[in-house]
This record gives sequence, structure tokens and C-alpha cells, in this order.
Amino acid sequence: MKQILIKNAYIVTMNAKREIYNNGSILIEGNKIKAIGKVEKNLIAENVEILDANGKIILPGFINTHVHLSQQLGRGIADDVDLLTWLRERVWPYESSFDYESSLISSTACCVEMIKSGVTTFLESGGQYVDAMVEAVKNTGMRAALSKSVMDDGIGLPENWVKTADEEIETQKELFEKYNNSADGRIKIWFGLRTIFNNSDELILKTKKIADELNTGIHMHIAEIAAENDYVKSSRGNSTVEHLHKLGALGPNLLAVHTVWLTDREIDLFRLYDVKVSHNPAAAMKVVLGFARIPEMLDKGLNVSIGTDGAPSNNRMDMMREMYLTSLIHKGRTLNPKVVPAEQVLEMATINGAKCALLEKEIGSLEVGKKADLIILNPNTIHSLPLHDPIANIVYTMSSENVESTMCNGQWLMKNREILFLNEKELMENLKQKSKEIKEKAGIVLPNRFPVIDII
Amino acid sequence: MKQILIKNAYIVTMNAKREIYNNGSILIEGNKIKAIGKVEKNLIAENVEILDANGKIILPGFINTHVHLSQQLGRGIADDVDLLTWLRERVWPYESSFDYESSLISSTACCVEMIKSGVTTFLESGGQYVDAMVEAVKNTGMRAALSKSVMDDGIGLPENWVKTADEEIETQKELFEKYNNSADGRIKIWFGLRTIFNNSDELILKTKKIADELNTGIHMHIAEIAAENDYVKSSRGNSTVEHLHKLGALGPNLLAVHTVWLTDREIDLFRLYDVKVSHNPAAAMKVVLGFARIPEMLDKGLNVSIGTDGAPSNNRMDMMREMYLTSLIHKGRTLNPKVVPAEQVLEMATINGAKCALLEKEIGSLEVGKKADLIILNPNTIHSLPLHDPIANIVYTMSSENVESTMCNGQWLMKNREILFLNEKELMENLKQKSKEIKEKAGIVLPNRFPVIDII
Repeated sequence: MKQILIKNAYIVTMNAKREIYNNGSILIEGNKIKAIGKVEKNLIAENVEILDANGKIILPGFINTHVHLSQQLGRGIADDVDLLTWLRERVWPYESSFDYESSLISSTACCVEMIKSGVTTFLESGGQYVDAMVEAVKNTGMRAALSKSVMDDGIGLPENWVKTADEEIETQKELFEKYNNSADGRIKIWFGLRTIFNNSDELILKTKKIADELNTGIHMHIAEIAAENDYVKSSRGNSTVEHLHKLGALGPNLLAVHTVWLTDREIDLFRLYDVKVSHNPAAAMKVVLGFARIPEMLDKGLNVSIGTDGAPSNNRMDMMREMYLTSLIHKGRTLNPKVVPAEQVLEMATINGAKCALLEKEIGSLEVGKKADLIILNPNTIHSLPLHDPIANIVYTMSSENVESTMCNGQWLMKNREILFLNEKELMENLKQKSKEIKEKAGIVLPNRFPVIDII
Repeated sequence: MKQILIKNAYIVTMNAKREIYNNGSILIEGNKIKAIGKVEKNLIAENVEILDANGKIILPGFINTHVHLSQQLGRGIADDVDLLTWLRERVWPYESSFDYESSLISSTACCVEMIKSGVTTFLESGGQYVDAMVEAVKNTGMRAALSKSVMDDGIGLPENWVKTADEEIETQKELFEKYNNSADGRIKIWFGLRTIFNNSDELILKTKKIADELNTGIHMHIAEIAAENDYVKSSRGNSTVEHLHKLGALGPNLLAVHTVWLTDREIDLFRLYDVKVSHNPAAAMKVVLGFARIPEMLDKGLNVSIGTDGAPSNNRMDMMREMYLTSLIHKGRTLNPKVVPAEQVLEMATINGAKCALLEKEIGSLEVGKKADLIILNPNTIHSLPLHDPIANIVYTMSSENVESTMCNGQWLMKNREILFLNEKELMENLKQKSKEIKEKAGIVLPNRFPVIDII
């Protein structure tokens, strides 16, 4: 099996003891880590590929726990508008105009942006063309849990999106059989629940049952906007979390996304059932509106991770940005400069993300036997020096520019900022062309923010 | 005089009508804009330098209205700590260990980071070695208003920092005579007032008088932390702003920085006296703690601009980041996704900044006769495409990576991401060396966030 040896690096392992190896090495064999820290010479094969990472920092690849691959071509179609406009006049018409090809381009572009910000694994919230997402993950070399966008209820939805609960379950079972553990095991298939606005109790219960049986995860937007709890209370008698609890739908394989509007009791319920949380700070401020009570959740021992959300929401698939925001906004909200310190943010983006992905035995830290999912950061830029406090610098000063190389499953996906698996320029041209076509097809016209004069 | 013609660009002028020229040109002669939009051929000299900017966006250079040049080497020395630790155990000992050479390296590095994020003009809050700052501005080609760090009062200050009011005024008058309008007019000298904690009424009054006489500006931290108002009320009977009003110190040449804790009446007072505001969103969340009431200030017609603050506070001298934050955090705080839209953020970073700098007749927009201070953005990156809504994309998706070239006073400071006036690699080596020396000299020891194991 092929070996890669990375030498002389500052390796932030995120293992149980959170050990950092200064001037450490890491030996990769096949898709796994064979040795780390001090690598004994007798382990190293003759034809090993050697990389000197002197002055560089190695981290586990980031895990983006909430993303919408199919929204990538819609970046910029819904900025500075209210949520109903965002959803009904912009994002839904846009996504309704998608086909397999546009889904593939959108998904691929989203993956490439993530790779360039150091993401190796992501959890997709649910799209229409899961086949296209599978193809994008295969082509780009990433690791992902994919799910279908699932809706069997609710007003205002695009006509052909609404199915029966049984139809939704059946389609997802088929996807699971077809794709779970495909692409060398990099692809997992999860079950989706879009939101409580769009999902019946029947669907929720059947989803919980089948996901438990198949030992896989459920991805759901929960307590995203204040109006959500009002809606569920008036229609089903309780808040979203209380209602899910009553249904018996809370559990360790449920990923709750956003969770902006949780009460103390609901945080306790999440703890009790080990429900996982995906915090999306940019989207929460820009669209969803509000600050999730992350310091309180972390204090109570919840497993909180970080997600970017989709491009019209945040608007970047950049985990470095979201880490910075995560650290910043809760200090501002709680008036406490010590909450959510840099080291905790790194945990959220790595090992906590792995737990959300139900993959903590395989990824999320750099340890012998785990998958070789890692990134190399180059701190030698004028914007990130000096390096008095490396862990703090990663979170507070570095940005995706500092992500020099990204490896997933023992394969380099990006090396020295160059994407290896595909032609990035060609992808950008396809993206421009296709996003223009879809905007026209969807009939979306954006007002000019300033008067534009064409010079002829 | 030398001419430069930039062709085929999407030019966001920020003029009074906020006109955008699509496929426009801009002709620069010497340090000024000679023509813009459609450039008549008869204006163009034979030996003109021509740049085709097809597919690129041109903007006025950003104006960073609050920065501490001398804190650049202290990035990372004070993350996740409370304000008193920040100030007394980290930043003050650090800055006290500075000399001319370290100030020059710190200032130069700070300027280069700013140029790389599209800043052409900045307002410096006040350092110990103004000579070194002057030298850095000369060497890097930027435009700036510099001031001295001024303290004649207050507890806990480093011994040799405290002077009498008259001493402080005298030194600043000398600096004004020596440096104001130097470096081809790019350097202005302002008067500093550090904070009300450190400045006596005598100094405030004398500063106001001399700044008015010399027709220059005053740079002051105001209502930065909640405790500030409590302190001034107990010692001088009023909040900071009310006290300054009572003294007669409010006026159009006063730049109030942070202004996190303003009442409605204080916002009205600022409007009445046309006091200028510098909003520093990252620092406000990370250190200063709280959200300035920016939407309310903008609604009332205050001139609000954007600043980065110093490196231990925010931690980047990156106006693209601060613009993004400015747009994001007020939506979250007010639960209104329409407040502080992208076009308003661009105004804050350009023309409003120029008004704060008291230079709105010369910079802040791209118009015939104004100084040629501009930047070229390249939107063709996977993280910023598609470009459905260019103004929104600048604020929400682009980052300093997209700043391709920066021009100040008709001179290219950076072209295609390469700094032209100095050797950036050499600067980084000096910065590393010097920041290490100063940290040792200041006796600052930072705890390891995770256990570090040295591999031998």
C-alpha cells in the first residue's frame, strides 16, 4: 500500500488528551494513519512519498455539519431580504429549476469551495438529486453523509415537491441500499427531515424507525426561527423539540440544525437523548435570525459542531470563517470575553463534528488507525503572523487562504492550493453559464442596488 | 505626467448618485482621476499604461477609520481574556517594550496587511513612536491620519507613559508642524485622546482648541465599555458623551471610536454636532463587548464608518472581514434581515470613511478631480461565484483574497497580489524575530491551550 510521510510539523491531533506534537511526523498508509508523533524508521517503506511541513500546522480535516450542495449556484440571489421572500420568491423557484446537470455542477463547486477551506467531511441537508450529489462526492474525493430533501406536508411548497410519507421513506431506502458505503466507504446515506413545517408526524415516526433499523443518521432543521415554535404549538400543541420528544423522535442519531430558539428544558432534553447540534453562526445572523445559545449548550455538555449552511444564507462554504464567527458572536452576546475560546471552537469543527457524523471512531482526530483526513495550514502570511498562540491564531486570524493542502481518506484533494481531482477553471465557467440559465428559467429578477450605466 | 488607463471594468464609483459604470474605463493622470466612465480618446496620452480589467470590479480604496499600528506584533498575545488582563498584563507591557525599530516593523506589517485587504487610507489611533509610523506610511505608499497616544491621567498606566496636558499638547503641535501634509500630502497629523479614563478635562479642552485652530481631527475611544460610563458618572457626574458635550468638546472633527454604549439622546447629540463614528464590529464583540447601535445611528443620519482596531483585538487588519461582520451582526441583534444592507456597508467603508477622515473632497469615491485611490477586485474565484448581485457579493462572499490590486495617490501599491514597494518575505522574517524579542522582553508567558509534546 502507498505510504505518505509528512515531517517536522506542528501536529494538532485533537485526540482524547488533545496532544500537540511539536516537530512531529505522521505516516499514512493507504487510507489510514499508521503512525504519528515520532515515527519509527522500521515502519517506513522505501517508496514512501515524503513531504517536509516545517513551519506548518497539521489538523484533522474540518467537518461541516450542515450544507446545501444544490444552493451553490444561488449565491447572491437572496441577500438582505426577509425569510419568506428568501424562501418562496428566491430559493424555491431557483431550486425548482434544477436538473441533474445543474445539481452536479452546483454540488461539485460547493465541494471544491469546501476543500479549499479545509473541509474533508460534510453532512448534506437534503437535495432533490441525490445521484448528482453522490457523483460530486465521488469526483472530488470528499467524505459525506447525503440525504434527500423530504417534504410531505406544508403550504407554499413547489407543486411537485410534496410526496406522501411512504413515498419519501421508500425513495430514501432505495438510496440507502444503492449508495450507503459507496465511493470506498466515503459516502453515507442519511434520512432527511426538512422542517416541522413540511413534515408530518407520520413521516417523522417512520423516519426515526427506519434510521434506527439501518443504524444511520437523521438530518433536520430544528427551532430555526421564532415563528416555528409558534406554528407547532398552534398546530400540534407543543414546541418543535417538545413535540419530537413526545413522539419519541429524539435520539443520538438525530442532528438538530440551527437550534436558535431552545429553552433550558429543551437543552436538557437534547442532553438526555444525546441529540447532536449543528451551529451555523453566519446563517443564524443573516437569515434565520438570532443567536443560538451555544455557550449554555456547551456548558451542559451537548455535542455542538459547526456548519456553514447553503450559499444564499451565509454566503460562504468556509469553515475558517464560521469558526471565527463562532468564537466572536457569543462573546458579544453574553458580554463575556472568555466564552467559546479558540480551543473549544477547534473541537467543535473537528471531533465534535465527527460525533455528529456518527463517525468519531474513524475521523475527527489524528490517531493511529483512524482515516487519514487532514489539512496543512501555512501560517506564513503577513495577515497571520506573528504566531504567539498558534491555536488562537488558527481561529482568530487565519482564513481559507492559509489552508495549503487538504487530504481525505489518504488522498490529496488539494496540494499547495491546487485542486487535484478536476479542472477548477473549467468548473468556474460551467458554474457561471449554468447559474445564469437557471436564474432566467426561474424568472428571478434582482433589483440594482445602485444605478448601473452601460458604457458602449 | 504619467497616465494609467484601466479599461472594461465594472466601476462602482460611490459618487453622489452612486453610479456604477458597466464596462467602464478610468483614466488616471499623476495622482488624480482625469476621466471616468467613457474616456474620450483625445484625453489619452501616447505613453499611457493600459490595464484591461475585463470581468473585474473597481472600487474606491477602503478607509479603515481605527487602527493601532504598534499592536501588529502583539497579534495573539491576548485572546480569550478579560479586558483588564488584555490591557494591563498583555498589551501595555508589550507596547512598553517597543522602540523605534519595532514600531517601524509593526507599522509596516500592519500597512501591508491593510493594502492586501484593499485599504488605501487609515486613521491611526495613537502610538508612542509617531516618527516610525510616518516612515512606514512613506515606505508603503498609503494615505493616513496619524496621532500620538496621549495620556495625562488614570491608574494602572506604564510609568513613563503619563505626561502633563501641556506636554502632550506641545509634542503633538511639534509633530503637526513637522509631518502634516508630508509624503506628497498623504500624511495628516491628528490629535489623540486615548480614553476618558486617561485624559483630564484640561487636556480634552486644550486638544479641542488646538485641533480647531489647526483645522485637523481628534481621534478618541468613546463609550467603549459599559464600565466607562459608570466611571465618568462617578468621577465627573455624567456619561462620557454628556461630559464631552458639557465641556464643549463635541464637533465635526471629533472621531468617536467604538461607541458601543450610546443612549438615544447621545446619538442625537452626535447628530447635532456632526460627530463622526468608527464602528469596529470584531473588536466590539471580542474585547470591548457589546453591539454598537449602528442601525439606529444610520437611521438618524450619523456618519458611521468601519475600523478594524488593532491586531490583539479583532485579530485582522482586514476591511473585507469587517464589512462582512458589519452587515451580519446587526441583522442578528435586531432580528431584521434587511438592516445594514450590502450597499450601505460599502458606503460606510468608502465615502463615510472619507468624511470621518475629513477628506471627502479628495477621496472616498471615484470622480474626476479626486485622488486616484482605488482597488481592483477579481470575483473569479470558486468561493465568490456566481455573481448574481455584485454589490452583495463584495460584502457577503468576497474576502481579501479577491483584492487583486491596490492603488493610492495614483501609484500601484499592490499589483496582482504582489506588494511593490518592499520585500514582503523579508518583512515577515523581521516581524517574526522582533515580535519574539519583545514578548520575551515584556515577560509575557501564554499558557498552552493544549499539551505540547516536543518530538526530538
